[in-house]
Amino acid sequence: MKLLLLSNSSAPGREYLDHAREVIADHLTGVSELLFVPYALADHDGYTAKVAAFMDGLGIRVRGIHTADDPRAAAGEAQAVFIGGGNSFRLLKSLQERGLTEAIAHRVTEGGAPYMGSSAGTNMACPTLRTTNDMPIVQPASFDSLGLVPFQINPHYLDPDPASAHMGETREERLAQFLEENDVPVLGLREGTWLRRTGGTLELGGIAAGARLFTAGAEAVEYAPGADLSHLLTLPARFDHRTV
Amino acid sequence: MKLLLLSNSSAPGREYLDHAREVIADHLTGVSELLFVPYALADHDGYTAKVAAFMDGLGIRVRGIHTADDPRAAAGEAQAVFIGGGNSFRLLKSLQERGLTEAIAHRVTEGGAPYMGSSAGTNMACPTLRTTNDMPIVQPASFDSLGLVPFQINPHYLDPDPASAHMGETREERLAQFLEENDVPVLGLREGTWLRRTGGTLELGGIAAGARLFTAGAEAVEYAPGADLSHLLTLPARFDHRTV
Repeated sequence: MKLLLLSNSSAPGREYLDHAREVIADHLTGVSELLFVPYALADHDGYTAKVAAFMDGLGIRVRGIHTADDPRAAAGEAQAVFIGGGNSFRLLKSLQERGLTEAIAHRVTEGGAPYMGSSAGTNMACPTLRTTNDMPIVQPASFDSLGLVPFQINPHYLDPDPASAHMGETREERLAQFLEENDVPVLGLREGTWLRRTGGTLELGGIAAGARLFTAGAEAVEYAPGADLSHLLTLPARFDHRTV
Repeated sequence: MKLLLLSNSSAPGREYLDHAREVIADHLTGVSELLFVPYALADHDGYTAKVAAFMDGLGIRVRGIHTADDPRAAAGEAQAVFIGGGNSFRLLKSLQERGLTEAIAHRVTEGGAPYMGSSAGTNMACPTLRTTNDMPIVQPASFDSLGLVPFQINPHYLDPDPASAHMGETREERLAQFLEENDVPVLGLREGTWLRRTGGTLELGGIAAGARLFTAGAEAVEYAPGADLSHLLTLPARFDHRTV
């Protein structure tokens, strides 16, 4: 299995996906056509055109799955799949309504097609969408997503701002609530970072800010780019398991 | 129907609920015992004790609904109900599992018991939880909530921060996504503000920052404390209705 899971698609002062150009090129080596899943945004054509403009620079054609007569068949024969960011609930509902969660997961796990996700597309690679930052604007039939990794990821992970007077929960407090109800590790991927999975190996990449791992009943742990996170692929995950 | 819907329960430098002490006292005039719903947090006893300490200053006893042998019966005979903040998904799931969404809504709409909510408790007063800011840490059977008002509220509404380098969506962008999928007005209640409903009258209260109303296909509109928002009680609401 080959996964590239980006925290974010846009970085300050950079064009779309440009901050991760090298790792994307490496991940998609040998791919001539990429199947893009634009359902997280409302404008499927516009979103696909944006991805195509970036991928053109890598010599890769892009096909929007929304243009396929049979999206499941398109997933089943894709050379590689990219699910873009936007709203995770809208995305998951769209995937479920078209039978695509199973079809894409099967193509990636059994067919060996490289999978790439950014933001909501990275959420989709987890067992569930329970650690998304997005607003639940529509209701998917289930929170279960592709399950390409056995732990949860929080994209756009943001450290608490001590200067803020805002009384809403910090990201860390939100994740602590998740860990009260689920005994499942959560990796907070700061912007500019990503995960690469190749078979049983998982490695953190990107900028120095790195990632922060949250586990029920333990102190959070910091990881720097280059860290081997393969142990996360073998930890147990118990959802709906009260830990407090 | 009597509703008091607070954006937040804690304000900088103030004790729990203290920023809204006057309006709470007025809302609960004549009430000697308040039924408190602590399900949004994990520690029900601790949360109930915190509310009891505040209400003691108003001469009101507090009963935690989690201590009732029959929570539905407790809701059915409550003088007044307060649903506190925390995680909206955990709260809604707990209410649904106990048959409390209908029981509380019935007690408030038919029995005339004053309802008070803060943050997640304010989300619960809307038709759905689709405009919560919370993380979906558990999966409720449905996103449908109490429906004590016919529009959506976004508590802790936060204006975009032009200085931020964070690439996640702003609150306004999140609400714009909601309005792509639902033709339903959303009132962004800034911290320190609240709504009061008395029958067919709806009024904004609290600090000068006020509230911001988002409607599909229209410019957002600002409202200051004292504004009469009764027209929001008669606007149509069409969920799962694509507007773009």
